[in-house]
Amino acid sequence: MDIDSTAQDKARLFAGAWGRVKALPGKLKAKVTSTAKSIKKLGQDDPRRLTHSLKVGLALTLVSLLYYARPIYDGFGVSGMWAVLTVVVVFEFTVGGTLSKSLNRGFATFLAGALGLGADYFASLFGKNGEPIVLGILVFLLAAVATFSRFFPRIKARYDYGVLIFILTFSLVAVSGYRVNELVVLAHQRLSTIIMGGATCMLISIFVCPVWAGEDLHKAIASNLEKLATYLEGFGGVYFQSSEIDGMGTGKSFPQGYKSILNSKSSEESLANFARWEPGHGRFRLRHPWKHYLKIGALARQCAYQIEAINGCIGSDHIHGSEEFKGKIEGSCTRMSAECGKTLKAIAKSMKTMTDPYSSANTHVENSKAAMKDLKFALKAASLENADLAAILPAATVGSILVEIVKCVEKISEAVHELSQLAHFEKETVEPTVSPEKPPQLLHRGIIQPVLDGDSTANDNVVITIHEIISTDSPENGKACDQHQVPKPGQKIEAL
Amino acid sequence: MDIDSTAQDKARLFAGAWGRVKALPGKLKAKVTSTAKSIKKLGQDDPRRLTHSLKVGLALTLVSLLYYARPIYDGFGVSGMWAVLTVVVVFEFTVGGTLSKSLNRGFATFLAGALGLGADYFASLFGKNGEPIVLGILVFLLAAVATFSRFFPRIKARYDYGVLIFILTFSLVAVSGYRVNELVVLAHQRLSTIIMGGATCMLISIFVCPVWAGEDLHKAIASNLEKLATYLEGFGGVYFQSSEIDGMGTGKSFPQGYKSILNSKSSEESLANFARWEPGHGRFRLRHPWKHYLKIGALARQCAYQIEAINGCIGSDHIHGSEEFKGKIEGSCTRMSAECGKTLKAIAKSMKTMTDPYSSANTHVENSKAAMKDLKFALKAASLENADLAAILPAATVGSILVEIVKCVEKISEAVHELSQLAHFEKETVEPTVSPEKPPQLLHRGIIQPVLDGDSTANDNVVITIHEIISTDSPENGKACDQHQVPKPGQKIEAL
Repeated sequence: MDIDSTAQDKARLFAGAWGRVKALPGKLKAKVTSTAKSIKKLGQDDPRRLTHSLKVGLALTLVSLLYYARPIYDGFGVSGMWAVLTVVVVFEFTVGGTLSKSLNRGFATFLAGALGLGADYFASLFGKNGEPIVLGILVFLLAAVATFSRFFPRIKARYDYGVLIFILTFSLVAVSGYRVNELVVLAHQRLSTIIMGGATCMLISIFVCPVWAGEDLHKAIASNLEKLATYLEGFGGVYFQSSEIDGMGTGKSFPQGYKSILNSKSSEESLANFARWEPGHGRFRLRHPWKHYLKIGALARQCAYQIEAINGCIGSDHIHGSEEFKGKIEGSCTRMSAECGKTLKAIAKSMKTMTDPYSSANTHVENSKAAMKDLKFALKAASLENADLAAILPAATVGSILVEIVKCVEKISEAVHELSQLAHFEKETVEPTVSPEKPPQLLHRGIIQPVLDGDSTANDNVVITIHEIISTDSPENGKACDQHQVPKPGQKIEAL
Repeated sequence: MDIDSTAQDKARLFAGAWGRVKALPGKLKAKVTSTAKSIKKLGQDDPRRLTHSLKVGLALTLVSLLYYARPIYDGFGVSGMWAVLTVVVVFEFTVGGTLSKSLNRGFATFLAGALGLGADYFASLFGKNGEPIVLGILVFLLAAVATFSRFFPRIKARYDYGVLIFILTFSLVAVSGYRVNELVVLAHQRLSTIIMGGATCMLISIFVCPVWAGEDLHKAIASNLEKLATYLEGFGGVYFQSSEIDGMGTGKSFPQGYKSILNSKSSEESLANFARWEPGHGRFRLRHPWKHYLKIGALARQCAYQIEAINGCIGSDHIHGSEEFKGKIEGSCTRMSAECGKTLKAIAKSMKTMTDPYSSANTHVENSKAAMKDLKFALKAASLENADLAAILPAATVGSILVEIVKCVEKISEAVHELSQLAHFEKETVEPTVSPEKPPQLLHRGIIQPVLDGDSTANDNVVITIHEIISTDSPENGKACDQHQVPKPGQKIEAL
């Protein structure tokens, strides 16, 4: 009986193990399927990744011709290896990245090679015994100094790879000189193969389906503005409606695309860095103001921080606000955020078509500012005698942050306008005046009531106030349009 | 006369030019002085930079012994070059960085070398004419596939360098095989010199003044929390006082250190990535929960976003708020931000000493929550009959965002408590009860008046409310202390 049960146990164990083994192919299949899916997704998200991979393969295959073809091999010998090495190390996703690395590598090799030969000659003056000691000291000093220089932010940003290759080549040449006799021939072979590898990379990356860092940066900034716009356009409707339906806005139905902007700084900076190495391409000239994009990017991030704060207010649980008060500010808040969204949409669109956004965006900027003033009136007019301040606070906070967003969007609009002037975007043919488009917006000002409370100064009636809005804003914008000077582009970014 | 004036002109020009030439050494001197100053500052900011530079020099000099010493040179020949190359490319600032690159390089070289030999053998089966074609196809395919795999975020983060070296070595071995005869000897020499170079780097980076990425991450997170604390501790005083003095807070006297936190994500991620390669060191064990630091970092960033929103509110021009209202919320707001600051200070301190922050921080968390409730009462009690909502809005917004900050700080406190349990921080001997420290805070509750308005439910008198605070919060915190399960550390960060 005991034995029998052991046998049964064994049988059960075996069956279990067998089941797992049978299940293994299924699991493996699932694993393979999921990997295949993620590969497919990676390619579909950005088909240029596939092209890039094929380009690297092509460059490597071309360069290995140095080995296969006897006449070329006889010219270069084993130094052909350096061409292969260069291609693998230098070929980057963007044209700017490839150019930056190729040129850094080329110049650093040349400079360090020459210096290495010099060091070698200098060391040989000290005789066979002194030579290794002098060489060792030179290599130590140069490596230490060059490594330290890599900590300088400016060198780090543009010449980091160059300094690395400088140390590498100097050490190799200086040290090899102690053993290799025909050092100059070797250095020459090495340099020319590196140039060949670098040139292959540069040509392929420029002429075969090029990926321009500058264009990527341009598109990334425009798409970031669009993400902000999508949030802001949807915000008013979703926030005020959802709270009417279920009593609290959970913030879950908002598009969360803007979150990627919060951490966009480093990728934007590296793209701008690469873009400066690129030649003119498409509608971008050689000295396109790439730095200015960083300024716009910083402003977009500023705006995203504000949105993050709003988002936090919505998601939190103290949202049970007074519906009456919400209703009072709903109109102006919704319009503020919608107009901000429209401004950003217009700017993003004009960036994509590379036209001056001034005329298309300015109307919306004016509208959002008008809505901001409406909010102030609505807040003044709101009767608070039997309202609970704690209850109306969340909605009031949202309004207050929206005011900041309006200002931020205005700054973005100005910055893109500056960019359009620096980069010579096409001018639109539409007149940059504000008047004819205004009436429809005026019709929407539903909540302005002629409040005649004496304590708030200088608000006699509504009509005068609206005139005031138009008259005070126009000259300022005229100024912005006509004589706008760029106030040191990098400043804002450095402060961030 | 004409000639004379020309001569005078010439003399003047010459004098001008001479002046500039005389000024040149002065300018050069100024330039040199400023460069020297910036070098000195770079070294003083982080003296480890200097040490690192010397370490790189040392490693290179050691490795070049392969060339100088005849017995070693005879063993390796020109392959010694690969040791030099490895040192230059692999030596990173942190131990984790160096280990990650060395190990990646070593394993990738081994794997790719073996594969390359295999490919070479396979290609040789196709005869002298077919060999280069087959080799070319293999190199193309492998380079394309490996390059594509570098786009996978997980491979990119940890094995990017390894894949690069894999492509490099495979191409070199496969292609060289066509010309070089003793390929196995060559591959062996190459691998052993790379291992020697890598080992030199690893040993020097671990044993000579090591810079641990994990320790840096730990310190960076603690210092970020401290920066937030400095802002919050100072906030109440400066905001409410400056507005009393000059009628508007300009936001300029605030410490702006927190701004660096806004863009800290990428550096934290790379440090965490390197930290995972490091062996146990000091008080950090091998499997220290580095990923959890990213969670705390994300929460700190969240808090910094909120502070950025507050900072925007202060700096803007619509600050002419009602002083009366400001006075009413001053007490609770100042206390909220000060207690948040104290919480973060306590957490940062306990992180530095690696003790559980629970008992020291929890008192302040409780105090800040109590102040939050006070704010609600103050808001309810504030008489708004003759107040202008637009005027009180800025201050109210600041209060509202402070409420969010209190919540965020509580989350940070919980996250660090989790970390302290995961990483086995020392327990403090202080009892984690709240009662004895409470009275002083209670004394400060100046603005709580026994308001007896019927519409707000369940607030009969103040004493009951305070009991309620203590009793409702205690079990929740008890739970957090006793049976806290870590809810998927990476989750929050991925959402960001």
